[in-house]
Amino acid sequence: MIDPTRFNQQMDFLLEIDKLKQIQRRNLLLDGSRTESTAEHSWHIALLACVLREYSDDPVNLEQVLLMLLVHDIVEIDAGDTYAYDETANLDKEEREHQAADRLFGLLPADQSPLFHKLWLEFEAMQTAESRFANAVDRLMPLWHNYYCGGTIWLENRIRKSQILKRMQPIQNGSRALWQAAMQIVDRAIQDGYVLDDSE
Amino acid sequence: MIDPTRFNQQMDFLLEIDKLKQIQRRNLLLDGSRTESTAEHSWHIALLACVLREYSDDPVNLEQVLLMLLVHDIVEIDAGDTYAYDETANLDKEEREHQAADRLFGLLPADQSPLFHKLWLEFEAMQTAESRFANAVDRLMPLWHNYYCGGTIWLENRIRKSQILKRMQPIQNGSRALWQAAMQIVDRAIQDGYVLDDSE
Repeated sequence: MIDPTRFNQQMDFLLEIDKLKQIQRRNLLLDGSRTESTAEHSWHIALLACVLREYSDDPVNLEQVLLMLLVHDIVEIDAGDTYAYDETANLDKEEREHQAADRLFGLLPADQSPLFHKLWLEFEAMQTAESRFANAVDRLMPLWHNYYCGGTIWLENRIRKSQILKRMQPIQNGSRALWQAAMQIVDRAIQDGYVLDDSE
Repeated sequence: MIDPTRFNQQMDFLLEIDKLKQIQRRNLLLDGSRTESTAEHSWHIALLACVLREYSDDPVNLEQVLLMLLVHDIVEIDAGDTYAYDETANLDKEEREHQAADRLFGLLPADQSPLFHKLWLEFEAMQTAESRFANAVDRLMPLWHNYYCGGTIWLENRIRKSQILKRMQPIQNGSRALWQAAMQIVDRAIQDGYVLDDSE
């Protein structure tokens, strides 16, 4: 009734990804009590996609968006969470993450492995409507977290407006409406002294 | 371009559910280092559904399964995580969770609120193929966690086989294949001395 070899491969993958709960991101929970894990982040942005879907510039298949968001950060189990504004660490990020994807998705049975690997590649490439929207919500959430936590992480890292705009570019590519909302947050962050305005 | 009232309602809901990261479940992470948050659990079982979908007794719409799994535990923000084997706490669980659903899903705009509320009710009712499969993976994961963490939580609470079988019943209702796999884990847990066999 159940193929034990196949089922064990599936279980190996599903138990291995438990480690994503141990990867800590830079941003704090909204009450500032601790940083969040990447697993928590993945859950949260999946719900962002469900609630904010109407703002995608192009119609999207929600199942595909959700699959990408659930899978997109699994590579961090091996490659770690690379801080968005750490230019040195970002130099070899792509190579580290590709190796991680090979190992982690390779745990799955031979027919499932490429399906999950492709979801990650689709997310990274930002070419399809689904991946553009998925990337938009993935960038929007940390903006909210940083702003509504009193800008702590921005202040600690002396983040400038130009850095945020560059980092948030995928929002503009996926949703003009969410980009408008994001720019309002950036303006308020500057007014509140959380972010240095280097655009003038 | 964006209706600020509507968008603020959506953002209020999405920021409020950050609190699900602070709800701690009883089971440990697989390395035993700490308990997991309900947000982490929700992400993990969504991926179980993606990988194990082929074992559902009935064909399922994966998007609907994922939506239910992402939403199903949000009520714990107000109602807390009720330990499965705590009979007293389970007496008023339903009432506490219904009040929580009213408040939390009520934060959303009037057209979205009933859609999310219905997902939770569908999950709880276990009547559709999607909700039966969603409940099956929701029960399977803690079984793996408890077993692969050396049975710590079972031993601390002196859990008996009959209690586990009762708790795991939704697996049998959603997937005969996963039920077979679950029973193998229960048998091994008894052999390893993690669970008391009270069936004889």
